[in-house]
Order: sequence, then C-alpha cells, then structure tokens
Amino acid sequence: MGKVHGGNASRHPAVKVRYVVDPIAASAQSLAKQLGAEVASVETALADKEVKAVIIVSPTTTHYDFITQSAKAGKAVFSEKPVDLSLERVIAALDVVEKNKVPFMVGFQRRWDPTFRAIKKQVEAGAIGKVEMVRVTSRDPSPPPATYVASSGGLFRDMMIHDFDMARWMLGEEPNEVFATGSCLVDPEIGKQKDIDSAICVLKTPSGRLCQIENSRRAAYGYDQRLEVFGSKGMLSAGNVAPTQVEQWSDLGLTRVKPEPFFAERYEKAYLAELYHFIDCLEAGKLPEVGGEAGRYSLALADAAQKSYETKQLVKL
Amino acid sequence: MGKVHGGNASRHPAVKVRYVVDPIAASAQSLAKQLGAEVASVETALADKEVKAVIIVSPTTTHYDFITQSAKAGKAVFSEKPVDLSLERVIAALDVVEKNKVPFMVGFQRRWDPTFRAIKKQVEAGAIGKVEMVRVTSRDPSPPPATYVASSGGLFRDMMIHDFDMARWMLGEEPNEVFATGSCLVDPEIGKQKDIDSAICVLKTPSGRLCQIENSRRAAYGYDQRLEVFGSKGMLSAGNVAPTQVEQWSDLGLTRVKPEPFFAERYEKAYLAELYHFIDCLEAGKLPEVGGEAGRYSLALADAAQKSYETKQLVKL
Amino acid sequence: MGKVHGGNASRHPAVKVRYVVDPIAASAQSLAKQLGAEVASVETALADKEVKAVIIVSPTTTHYDFITQSAKAGKAVFSEKPVDLSLERVIAALDVVEKNKVPFMVGFQRRWDPTFRAIKKQVEAGAIGKVEMVRVTSRDPSPPPATYVASSGGLFRDMMIHDFDMARWMLGEEPNEVFATGSCLVDPEIGKQKDIDSAICVLKTPSGRLCQIENSRRAAYGYDQRLEVFGSKGMLSAGNVAPTQVEQWSDLGLTRVKPEPFFAERYEKAYLAELYHFIDCLEAGKLPEVGGEAGRYSLALADAAQKSYETKQLVKL
Amino acid sequence: MGKVHGGNASRHPAVKVRYVVDPIAASAQSLAKQLGAEVASVETALADKEVKAVIIVSPTTTHYDFITQSAKAGKAVFSEKPVDLSLERVIAALDVVEKNKVPFMVGFQRRWDPTFRAIKKQVEAGAIGKVEMVRVTSRDPSPPPATYVASSGGLFRDMMIHDFDMARWMLGEEPNEVFATGSCLVDPEIGKQKDIDSAICVLKTPSGRLCQIENSRRAAYGYDQRLEVFGSKGMLSAGNVAPTQVEQWSDLGLTRVKPEPFFAERYEKAYLAELYHFIDCLEAGKLPEVGGEAGRYSLALADAAQKSYETKQLVKL
Repeated sequence: MGKVHGGNASRHPAVKVRYVVDPIAASAQSLAKQLGAEVASVETALADKEVKAVIIVSPTTTHYDFITQSAKAGKAVFSEKPVDLSLERVIAALDVVEKNKVPFMVGFQRRWDPTFRAIKKQVEAGAIGKVEMVRVTSRDPSPPPATYVASSGGLFRDMMIHDFDMARWMLGEEPNEVFATGSCLVDPEIGKQKDIDSAICVLKTPSGRLCQIENSRRAAYGYDQRLEVFGSKGMLSAGNVAPTQVEQWSDLGLTRVKPEPFFAERYEKAYLAELYHFIDCLEAGKLPEVGGEAGRYSLALADAAQKSYETKQLVKL
Repeated sequence: MGKVHGGNASRHPAVKVRYVVDPIAASAQSLAKQLGAEVASVETALADKEVKAVIIVSPTTTHYDFITQSAKAGKAVFSEKPVDLSLERVIAALDVVEKNKVPFMVGFQRRWDPTFRAIKKQVEAGAIGKVEMVRVTSRDPSPPPATYVASSGGLFRDMMIHDFDMARWMLGEEPNEVFATGSCLVDPEIGKQKDIDSAICVLKTPSGRLCQIENSRRAAYGYDQRLEVFGSKGMLSAGNVAPTQVEQWSDLGLTRVKPEPFFAERYEKAYLAELYHFIDCLEAGKLPEVGGEAGRYSLALADAAQKSYETKQLVKL
Repeated sequence: MGKVHGGNASRHPAVKVRYVVDPIAASAQSLAKQLGAEVASVETALADKEVKAVIIVSPTTTHYDFITQSAKAGKAVFSEKPVDLSLERVIAALDVVEKNKVPFMVGFQRRWDPTFRAIKKQVEAGAIGKVEMVRVTSRDPSPPPATYVASSGGLFRDMMIHDFDMARWMLGEEPNEVFATGSCLVDPEIGKQKDIDSAICVLKTPSGRLCQIENSRRAAYGYDQRLEVFGSKGMLSAGNVAPTQVEQWSDLGLTRVKPEPFFAERYEKAYLAELYHFIDCLEAGKLPEVGGEAGRYSLALADAAQKSYETKQLVKL
Repeated sequence: MGKVHGGNASRHPAVKVRYVVDPIAASAQSLAKQLGAEVASVETALADKEVKAVIIVSPTTTHYDFITQSAKAGKAVFSEKPVDLSLERVIAALDVVEKNKVPFMVGFQRRWDPTFRAIKKQVEAGAIGKVEMVRVTSRDPSPPPATYVASSGGLFRDMMIHDFDMARWMLGEEPNEVFATGSCLVDPEIGKQKDIDSAICVLKTPSGRLCQIENSRRAAYGYDQRLEVFGSKGMLSAGNVAPTQVEQWSDLGLTRVKPEPFFAERYEKAYLAELYHFIDCLEAGKLPEVGGEAGRYSLALADAAQKSYETKQLVKL
C-alpha cells in the first residue's frame, strides 16, 4: 500500500513526495527511487519544515506513534485504517490530533469508489426516500495466513470495520444496537486463533433503520463487494465490478469473468480519489471528509460486534 | 387463491373437481360453474366416497378444523400455509393426519418456483460445495390493511414464514439459534397493531451455517423475492423475475420493467407445479414433498423470531 | 404444432374442438382423444355447419388447398406460415379468402411474444421517437436435416420469413430495397442442396429507415432470438429468454443458463396468445391482426432476398 | 487528443516528452508546461538527435507530411487515424516509412480496449470455434458540426473506419465483398454536405465469413460501442461500459446509468495501453502491432463502402 499511496500522491500536480520512511532499507530505496524521493528517518522527515503532510501505511500497532508524532510536528495526517485496535488508544490519538489542529483523514477507501459514492449522492438527493435497510456484503477471495489473523484483532476489527464505516455512511444515523454471530467454516487454522471466518452482523439505529452485514474470508468467485440501500421509494444497489465486459455464450450458457480479484484492483480508482481529496483539502484549507470520528465509531461498532459474538447477546451503544 | 388452485387442479388430466365449498354463495356458484363442479357443504363433500382429496384455501383459523375433518374422512389434504398460528394446534392437526395415514401437503409454493428449485438441485449436486450462508430477501409491494395485520399473527408468522421454509430448505440443516429485530417504518397503522413492517432475522445451525432474512411490507419497485446461497465453491443466486425482457436505452440510461407485481403473477408456474406434484403423488401412491414437518418447523422458527424480537435476546431451539 | 394449436384452442372457454384431420391415423386418434374431438376427413369437417373455424398446421404445400377449401366453405381460417412458397399462389389463396369474406390469420407467432409486443407498443407510444434502425437476430440451435432443407424453399423463405415479418412490424413502413448475402458455413449438406445456412439481409424503406437481419442455422448456446429498435430518442431491445433466473458464481466467473432451447418453449406464451386473439376476434366479429398481407409481404421480401443473394445485386421492390 | 497522448507518454517511466509542436501558441505553451517540455517548430524537433519518436495528432490533411518528414528524419512514428483520406497518399506515406525502416503505428485505440482485446484473445484461443459472423455497432452520442463533416471524408472514412479495423481484426481474414447503404436521418445539415449519418455495411470474406456494421451519428443514450463475434462453438460479445455499477430500483423499474459519454472516457484505458505498447515496442526493438497495413486496409474498405453506397452495387476487392 505504500507504493499505491506514494504513487498516487506523486501523480498529484501539487505534490512532491520528499521522503520515504521504511525500516526495510531495500523497500525504502526502491520506492524512493521510483518517486524521486529520499530515504530518511521519521525524525528527519518530521523535522523538515517543508513537509506539509504525512501518509501512514505502516503496521497497525505503529499508527498511534506515527499519528501523534506527526500531529505534534504540525503535519497533516493521512492514516490507513484502523487507527488502532484499542478504542482508548484511538481516542487518545485523535485527542492529540485535535489539540494540534492538524487535518486528519482515515483510509476508508470505499467511500471514494465511484459507484458507492454515486449511491451516497443519490441517497442524499432523496432518490430512494427515507433509508430503511442497508445491506453490506464483503467477502475476501481467500483467507489470510493464520499468523496474520493472530495479530489482526479478529474479523470484526480487521475486516468488517470497512463495512461498519460503509453502514454508518449509508444509514445516515449512528447504530445503537448491535448483534453479531459467526462461525469458523473456511479455515480451521483461523479457529485455532479463536477467530471466525464467516460472520453476520445486524445493526439498528434509534429511529429503527436496520442494517445487515455479511463477511466471509473466502469467495471462490473472487472479491465480493456489494451494497444495497433500501428506502421508502426504492432501492439503490451496487454489484461487483469486473475487469472486462466480455460475455461468452456457449453450450454452458452465458459466462462473464470474475470480479476484480482483490482490493488493489477493485479500489484502484478509489485509492487515487481518496488521496487526491486529502491533498485538495490541504490545498484549499478544508478538513477532509473522512476524519477521526470515522475511525472511532467504526471501531466502537467492531468492538460491540465482537462482544455480541462472544456473549451471544445484543449489545447496546 | 381458491380460483388459482381450483383452476390448476382442473387442468390436470387425472382430476375432476367435484365440489366447491364456500360460505359466500356467489363466490361458490361462480367458481363451481367455471370448474364444472357443484356447490356443497363440507359434510356433503367429505361424505362422498369418490372424493379423494381436499384443497384447503380458507382463512387460517379454519385450517385446523378442515384438515382434521378431512383426514378423519380419509381424504388426502393440501392446505395453504400456515397450518395454524399456534404451534400446539399445528402439532395436534398433524397428529390427526398421521393417525389417519392420509397424504398431507402444505402450500409453500416457492419450493416449486423453477428458479428456486433449480438452485436447490444444484446445491444438492454440489455445485457450490458445502453451504455456508443463505440470504433470503422478501418484500411485498405494499402493506396489507391494518385489519388484516390484526389477525395475521404478526410479520414473522404471516410473512417471514415463507422465508423460514426457504431457509430450512436451502440450509439443509435445522437452525437452532434465532435472532430477530424489526421496526415499524412503513405504516404507523401496523405499529398500532403492535406489529412491525420491516425486519431482519439471523439463523444459525448446529454446524455453524448462517442465514439472514430480510422483510419489508413495502417495495416501491414491486414484489422483491431474491435468494443467495453461498458455499465453499461459490454462490447461487436468484434475482427478480420480470414480465418481459424489454430494455429501454434512453437519456435516462438503461431501464427495465419492474418485477412481477405480486405472488399470483410471480409464482404462477409454482402454483401449478405444486398442485400437479400433489396430484401426481396421489396417483403414484407417494407422499408429497412438502409435508407436515415443513409447516411445523417454519412456525417454530417464526415463534422463535417473534420471541427474539420481543425480548431482544437470542433464542435457542 | 397440431398438438400445440389444438391444445391452446381447447383451453379457450368459448371453443370446442370438433374434428382432427390428419392422414396419419394414429396421430389423428391420439390428438382427437386428448382434445375430446372426432377424427374426420376434410370434407366431413368442412361440411359441418357448426364448425366456425379451421386451424391449418399441415405441410406448406397443402396450405393453398386447405385455405381455399375452408374459405369457400365459409370458415374462418388460421394458417401456419408460410401461406405458400410461391407468391402467385399466396395471392391467389388470399383472393379466395377475400371473395368469401372469411376472417384470415397467419401464424407469425413472434408478434404475440410478450416482450416483442411490449416493444411494439412502446415504439407506437413514441418511447424512442422516430424509428431509424432495426436489428433482428435469429439463430436456430442446430441445422435441420438436409431432406427438410430440400423442400423448404431455402433459408430466406423458410427461416428469415419470420424476421421479415418482425422487420416490417417494427419499421412501420414497407421496405423497398433489399440486399442479402450468405454462406454455407455450418453444414455442407445444406450447401449440396444449393442452400445457405448463414445469412445477412439489409432492408431500406422509402423514408430511409434501415434494417439488418442475421440468420444462422446453428447456435451452440441455443435458440437466439433478439431484437433492437433504434430511434431518435433511444433504443428498445430484447435479449434472449432463459428458463430460470439462476446465476452461478464460481471460479469460472458468473454463469447463467442457456436460453429456451427452441420455438416450442421460447414462444409457448406467444402461441397461446396468438390463438386466443384469433378466437377472440371471431367472437367479437373483428378481423384478426396478422392477416393475409403479412403473409404476402413477408414472402415478397424473402423472394427479393433470395434474388439478391443469387445475383449479388440490390433488389428494388 | 494531444493532451491525452502527451499525458500518457509522459506517464511512461522510459519517456521524456521533449517538444510540443502546435501552430496555436497558447495551446502549445499550456501543454508544454504541463508535460515539462519545450515548444518548438517541426524542424527543430525533428533535427534533435535525442528525439526517438513522434506522436502525430494533427488534422488529417497534415498527417502525410508529418509522417514522411518524421520517417525521413529516422524517427519512430505514431499517427492518429486515418493516415490520410486518399488511399494513394496512404500508400505513398507507408512507402516512405518502409524505405526509412522506422517503426510505425496507427491509432486504432479500440484494439487496446481491455474488453475487445480479451475477446480477440479468446477468439484466437478457439473459445468460439471457427468465426462465422461479426457484428460491430458504433454510434456517436450526437452529430458533429456540419463544418467538420464537410472535410471529414464522409461517414465511412471518418467514422466507420474504426469499425472496419475492428471487423478485419475479428474476422481474421480480409473481406473481399462490400455492400453499404445509408440515410440522412439525424441532421439535415449533414445531408446538405452530401453525407449520411446512419449507415449499415455488410462484409464478406473469401471463405464466406460475414460481418455487419452499423453506424449512427446520434444515440440518445450515449456512446454506443458494442461487438459480437459469433462462431461454430458460441458467441463472444461486449456491451457498453458504464461509469458506475449503480442500479436504481424504483416505481419505473430498474435503471442503470448511461454508458461512458464519448471516446475520451470510453477508451481512456485503451489510449494509455496503446501508447505504452508503442513505447514498449521501441524499447524492445519490436514492431508495434497495429502498423501501416491497418491504416491501408481500413481505408480501402471505407472507399469501397462509399462507392457501394453511391452506386447501390456490391463492390468487390
């Protein structure tokens, strides 16, 4: 993801990528060369007065330190999700951001996907009347290695957090009831890590809007990223995105190619739009759209879902 | 529905519809004339030795009496769903059926829809490997009158019962955990009847298979009847059925017509196939596929969902 | 087709099928039994004063005699297409029909397909403005036996005649320029009969409207029956009709089942609607919609296409 | 298009855009600034030994001069289509290219569209068996100004030339029979220029493969770019490409957004892939895929279609 965000930033006409910070020297050198940047330490980079913003794409456990250091150095911060796996530390990090009054943005890239964004706009324009139900489907093509799962914070915080952000965005109201259930159906190694790989979560908001989210760590047909927003006047939905429009008619019937294989391809345009938005906001002196509260609320929902799954109880927020 | 089932029965080459029983004389006369049958009382009809089978399409509260009377008279029985709104009475009725050893079938017509049936066949053939998640979407075009709602038994028993039957069929395993939530978002009159018009239900089976069901009493775009069955090797899904294939390309983009408006049109073929199956089974001396257990288990799930909704607790079966 | 039309006629509440005429005794007996009719000779059937209408589903070479005999006996006539393979004989037969003032209808069943009919209605309602281009695609699943081809009149008269009727209907104007080309690509046996199995025809009307028709005697994916009508305000199109809505998502991508296999399934509803229209018109004392001129003009276009193919010249009408 | 090709070239890591040549000073300055290039005359640019390649995006009438000058200066040449409106001048230009042994590529960008390219690959891999029929649909969203039409060479040479290239590519064989017809249905101003705005062309190859092409200068629903390749084992087809996957279900039915509005959006990826191919070939010392013969043969087909339209005769090549 460092390459993706670095490359996207360097395509923006107003940006010069100055430093690449990476403890793995070879990666740092390679990316720096590609972007026409220098390899440097965190300290050097943050000490440079010309540096206006920091893009954080490091392991989740390091986000807190980099966010707070950057904020204290007066830099605008773009951080990959999740801000942290602990809600307390998320709140603490956001406090530092707020005190230092630096622009802050979390990398919920799906908000910048052209299709999901168009749906949000139409919802706001009243195309489906009052929102009543939201359905978010999110399935990865194949399960991550068990080692990754062990430190991931679990399916709800690692994977479904994106869907909680999508749900909040589409519901237009903060959910205050969370029920979640799940199973280990895909990979027993995940079960050994006390985690699950298949889950359903149901959300309800104070005014009664309902949302369901379904996750699986495996989909034989590729990355499954769909959305339905149902309201009093109709429904807006988004199917999967395929790399080509080819239709093959044969003795088997009609065949279309699989959706884009995973997030790098599926959200290529979204990653670019996201970073451009961050940069354009800095240029214009505006706050970016997906700020700290998106990170905080999504994690709170993930925590509630985890608790609901463990206790088999509805959790109220 | 009397006209539908009566008409379908009379199209079967092995069937002669003998009697129409209906307390509303005009309706009875009209249908009897159309089918070449006689108007008669229940007693007369059941006393006729030539009568082999009874089709019950009366209000739900009368099902129990008609089923047990027919069974005691040795007639095969086809009954519209639900058998009854009380699980105790359902069990009692099925006991009578069993003791009298008459063939019995419940009218869960969706099982005879060509698309859903094809999906079931492919699931059984292993096309998607092991079933992991099922999603059933069911939305009526518009809410029923409040008077109907009052005696309906509530959304879970009246409407979602069809989806419970579909879920059981597709899961291939009896769910033993039920969580349900809902709201009154569509029609305040329904709320005044202490009922809801929007609901989500989550089911889990002993082996960890998951299912979600969503219901709404209103869909601006027509009758919404969709299904997804997701497994280890892929997914089978069924979209809505439209009356024509017309695509209109205009300045608005691409437009397709709304789905079939409601159950009579959407399940026209299913109603015919259902009744033919019942009759063919009688001819062949076989038991029909969707017998008493379908009625009993679906109602048990509806009861559990109602309880979960009321108590905000997961209900175990 | 005798079974199809006979069965459809007998389902109409106003109809009693009285006679089945068929030189093959076994077929005649079987169908007569099924329809509750008698087997009879042409003479007997036509002499019966109670007989109001005749449905002709015999080999093309016999149509002329049956049409003219029936008309002279004062019976309404429904005849399968084509009326005859010779335009002179078609005109002669229609003269007899006209002189005897009997209702006459040709079996261009596609006009009664719900999708094509909906398109026609929308065209007439101005949904796409002024019609500019029409495209008709028609491909059979597999080639007929060479023996059939030998007496078929050739691809243009035997197969494309349906598409000429569709083109005329959708263009809303009689074409006066015809260009056709073709090849034998599918079955060399067809080539030995001096016929082709793959063809494209282009039509132009006096006001400049354009139409293209493509035919093949084989389509690996089933019966291919599509239509596009393009106008100043947009386009109406009809894709193929599948027997179910099942979508399978797998490692191969998305798969849908093949279209309905051939005309009996694809046009099942159309055949019923067609015959009901004929009967309803007789009941109401109206002339049926697809009368003699449809048979005459379509054959004239087929003749022109054949000539164009043979001479490699544009043919003007 | 200068901006498009210039921007794409400058994104390639191996490329430094050195000069912008444009008689309109303001445009030249603006693009040069954007690309980090200098404004220069043709002579200066071609005299620079460091310049390896020339991208020609000027009016068609100037292509001949720029191609031949560049070739004589030993530069690789990428030229927008058409090479010229006169087949003699095309051949003369290609002669100069050949004598100077410089790589040459024509800008038929559709060949680089991911969907069309995937279809070509599948055709070559035998997915549909032997190719039998090709259909190319190409409709512009709205007619060009009459002034443009006057010097365009007419619809066949200006617009359908892209479709002839597509047809040749997909047929896999050079057509030797051409029939074309057309009308002025969209804009009477086009008729005043003795041109047409609606056309159908039919091609046939020596082995009997058939192709139809349809063009309109206006489509209310946007840029219509579709393809069907039909063979002995099935069909490959490409529908239009929409900017988002949004589906709106409402009282109107299902609505999807219009296709990408015009070529800049529809072929954005194709333009990039095309130029990258040209540059990669130069780097690798290979000849680019779409060389002079593509320009020559497509124009020959356009000339034949124009002649067929004018004479109402089939034209043999």
